[in-house]
Formats: sequence, C-alpha cells, structure tokens
Amino acid sequence: MSKMIECLHQYTMETEEVIRKYLPPVEGFQKTVLDAMDYSVNAGGKRLRPLLMRECYRLFGGKSEEVEPFMAAIEMIHTSSLIHDDLPCMDNDTLRRGKPTAWVKYGYDMAVLAGDGLMIYAFETAAKAFSMGADPEKVGRSIGILAEKTGIYGMIGGQTVDVELAGKPIPREKLDFIYRLKTGALLEASLMIGAVLAGASEQEIQTVEEIASLVGLAFQIQDDILDVTGDPEVLGKPALSDEKNHKTTYVTLEGLEKAGKDVKEISEIAVSLLRSLDRNNQFLEELIIMLTDRKN
Amino acid sequence: MSKMIECLHQYTMETEEVIRKYLPPVEGFQKTVLDAMDYSVNAGGKRLRPLLMRECYRLFGGKSEEVEPFMAAIEMIHTSSLIHDDLPCMDNDTLRRGKPTAWVKYGYDMAVLAGDGLMIYAFETAAKAFSMGADPEKVGRSIGILAEKTGIYGMIGGQTVDVELAGKPIPREKLDFIYRLKTGALLEASLMIGAVLAGASEQEIQTVEEIASLVGLAFQIQDDILDVTGDPEVLGKPALSDEKNHKTTYVTLEGLEKAGKDVKEISEIAVSLLRSLDRNNQFLEELIIMLTDRKN
Repeated sequence: MSKMIECLHQYTMETEEVIRKYLPPVEGFQKTVLDAMDYSVNAGGKRLRPLLMRECYRLFGGKSEEVEPFMAAIEMIHTSSLIHDDLPCMDNDTLRRGKPTAWVKYGYDMAVLAGDGLMIYAFETAAKAFSMGADPEKVGRSIGILAEKTGIYGMIGGQTVDVELAGKPIPREKLDFIYRLKTGALLEASLMIGAVLAGASEQEIQTVEEIASLVGLAFQIQDDILDVTGDPEVLGKPALSDEKNHKTTYVTLEGLEKAGKDVKEISEIAVSLLRSLDRNNQFLEELIIMLTDRKN
Repeated sequence: MSKMIECLHQYTMETEEVIRKYLPPVEGFQKTVLDAMDYSVNAGGKRLRPLLMRECYRLFGGKSEEVEPFMAAIEMIHTSSLIHDDLPCMDNDTLRRGKPTAWVKYGYDMAVLAGDGLMIYAFETAAKAFSMGADPEKVGRSIGILAEKTGIYGMIGGQTVDVELAGKPIPREKLDFIYRLKTGALLEASLMIGAVLAGASEQEIQTVEEIASLVGLAFQIQDDILDVTGDPEVLGKPALSDEKNHKTTYVTLEGLEKAGKDVKEISEIAVSLLRSLDRNNQFLEELIIMLTDRKN
C-alpha cells in the first residue's frame, strides 16, 4: 500500500499540472472573474475525478493526450459547483479548506459569475479534444456524458433536492437520489468518459458507470459514518455536525452498524465488478478501496 | 415589409415549437428546478437568436433538423443569463416582461440552480445533434463556438465587466468591450453555428461573425438612443432611465446625433457584408435591418 501512496502522490501532481495547463490566463478586462476562477480551482482538493478518469482511460488501453482536456473540464465543473454551493443563498459558507470562499473574497456577484464562467469553460476546454486528433464521435459522446451527469439529471439535480430538503426529514428513497446524483454523477462521468475515449465497449461503459455509482454511494455513507465516529482533528471539521444540524443521513436512517456493513458490501461489489472487466489496473483498484475505506 | 412581418410571426411560432420540443419535462424529485427553468424559458422573448441561427443555416443551404438542438440550446443559454442577471446580487430585478423574476417566484437558491441547470442543459441539448446524423466534426465545432461565445471570452466576460463598472464612468474602449461581448457574442454564435452546420467556408463563417458583431453593436446603440428618444409606452419602461441611473451609454459618450449616424452606418456595413456573400435570404436581410432600426 505504501507504493500506492507514492503513486497517488505522483499522479496527483501530474493531474495538477494538466489542470493548470488548461486554466485560462488571468488577464484582460475580465481579470477579476478569471482571478476568482483561478483562485477557486487552485484552492486545493484531491483531484479525484480527473485522477479516476485517467486511470479508467488507461484501464482500457488509452495512451494519448486526448483525455487531458476532459480531466481539466471535470475539475472545473466540480469547482464551479463548490463556488455556487458556498453562496449565502445556499450553504452560506465563508471558509473552504481553510481559505475564504469565492463570494467572501470576490463578492457575491463575481462568485455567481465565476461559477458560471468555470461551468462554461469546462465545455470550451472539453471541445479542445476535437482538434487533438481524437475521434470526433467519441469526443462528442463524452461531451454529452459530461453535460448529462453535471446537469439536472446529475449533480445539479441532486443539489436541488438537497437544498429543498435542508433541515427537513428525508425518506431513504430521496436520500439515495441525492447521494446518487450529487456525489455519484460526476464520478460516473469521470469513469465513463475515460472508458469512452479509450474505446471501451458499450457493456464495459455500463459496468464502469455502475462501479462509479457504487463508489459514490460508499464514499457518501462513509462520510456520514466519519461524522459520528471520526477524529475531528483528522477530519478538519467538528464531530457530530450532522446531528447538531438535525441532518438526515444514512447513519440516522439505518444506524451506525448497518451503515458500516453496507459500505463494506458496496465497495466489495464495486471491486468485483472492476475485476470482472478482466483488465489490469492495480492502482485503480487500490484507489477505489481507499476511497470507500477512508478516515478523512 | 408587411410580408416580412407575417413571415416573422410564422417563423417565431416555429421557433417556439422547436424550443418547447427540447425543454425537459417538469417531473421527478427535481421538479422545482425544472419548473423554474420551464417558467423562465416560457416567459416570452423575441427568440431572436434561434431565429437568426436558422436563417443563417438556410442562407448556406442547410435543410435538415440538425440545427434544431442548437436553436433550443442558444435560447436556454440566453435565458440562463437573464435568470442570473436578475438575482439580488446582480441587477436585483423583481419583474421581467411583466412577470415575477425566477428568484422572486422560486427563491434565491432555486434561481441560481435553475440558471446553472439551463446553462448545462443547453450543452446536453446541443450534443443531441451527434445522434441526428449530423457531421460530428461540424457539431463538435459548433459546441466549441457555443461555449466560447457564452463564456468568459463571450457573454459572461461582458457581463463581468458590466457588473464591475456599474455606477462608474466607463471609457469608450470598455463600453465597446461590454457591448461586443454581452450583446454581440451570442448573436455571433447564432450566425456562426448556422453557417458551420450548413457547411459554409471559413471565409463565410468569418463574415457572418462580423455581421453579427455589427448587428449586436447597432442593436445596443439603438437601445441607448431609444432610452432618450423613445416612447415609454412603446418601450415598456420609463424614459431616461439610463440618465437617472447615471449610466454611461453610447449616447452619453458620443451624443445623440453621432449615435444615430453610427447606427445607420454600422447597419449599412452589416447589410453590405451580407450581400457580399452572394447568397439569397431576403428575410434575413430584412430582419437585420429591422433589428437595427427598431422602435422598441
């Protein structure tokens, strides 16, 4: 596993470089919004989505740079959602990863526009793959997946239901919907786009979508578990914050024990699905296990 | 000209139908945001951008339905920008076309998400052209144009500078930038995408971009003129609102006489460029003249 950590460190740095390469320069009359976009993308993060995308691309034998614009694009989309989530009218968060959120630093109006700007720039970036010698049909399909998994039938749809039900009791059915869309959808896009660009079969694309969906769910349940059992020092946030906020979580609905059992079961299914593909990417397998079995 | 008006009425109705066809159904857990999106798109409007796109597509001999997803997409993008522009942190408008704005009707958070949702759904919709038998390279290029003209180097870039300079004196150079990006960019995208999909040459695509840019500028200057000389009844807004808001406009910078002269000159150049293409679309020509010579 220590080789895995070393690898993860190296791959994360490479991913950072790809993201930086595709970010627009901070200059011109619209400098403020470009600065806000740059600040938000560079505020840190695990770069999980682009990392997963590249590893899935490699899993199916992908070897070219055509995946890079999509790696940058998915991180831009993820960041844009964080900028809008932090707004006063949404979660009203003033700090993210220990730094002032975009609206605190650049103003409410600029934060709305920076989120919009990143969201659109993600598609502008993804479209660059067309001029990189990639198969236009595969690039086109990948853009379609990116939009679908980001929009109202993906991440934004999940966010909508989450916002509407804030502070209210949530039935299991709707909690599953929120977890699947808000957390899972972008992970699904990451693996699916990697697979599509590398030329995977329809069956394989469907399987990685399922794997990503399971990983997203396990990741989210683990989040709920850590809120109860985790060390606030390691987590970087106060313990029992969900309980204090009267938030419905997987743990409040199903109990701690069942939640732990389910995470284990879900991640085992994900791994066995990955193995069923009969392709080899040891790093991807260990990354998936790490994601569902994390301590922070 | 009365035949033109009849034609415009007919084409606008056809465009409405195309837009309606591509709007997502208002159902499911995320119903509220879908309702807000639907409400905002159906709040009215001249549907100029999709109309111009289809006429430019026809100008270059386009005959298929592949242009339709893009017609719907550009109207979704335009609407999403109106939703975010109306937010309290931006223009703080409570009414648009006599109806409550999205944030008044659905709440601040839902309006942010409805704008995001429409922006992304525009790309999801445009990507549908890939499965309509259209040339994937042309569709790909059109998606790239849509993103570029919408984002920080297009509409959102113009909006950013406009918001930052609100209430401050604006030099001519920046006013041109705002007009070119905030108003012009989506018109450019409309004509360019029509041309690209219909298979126009690089030279022709460049020419329609220039035409659209000129039309956008003339349209915007005419707006400033009407604010001073127009009939409030016909305009649907109080006279001299720019002056009351201490707003820098083309008229405050250059005077009413020069503004009028410039509009005439700019629209004449646009029409002569259109004629230089040596293609025939009388309706498009008359539409461009009408846009730059309007009374409301």
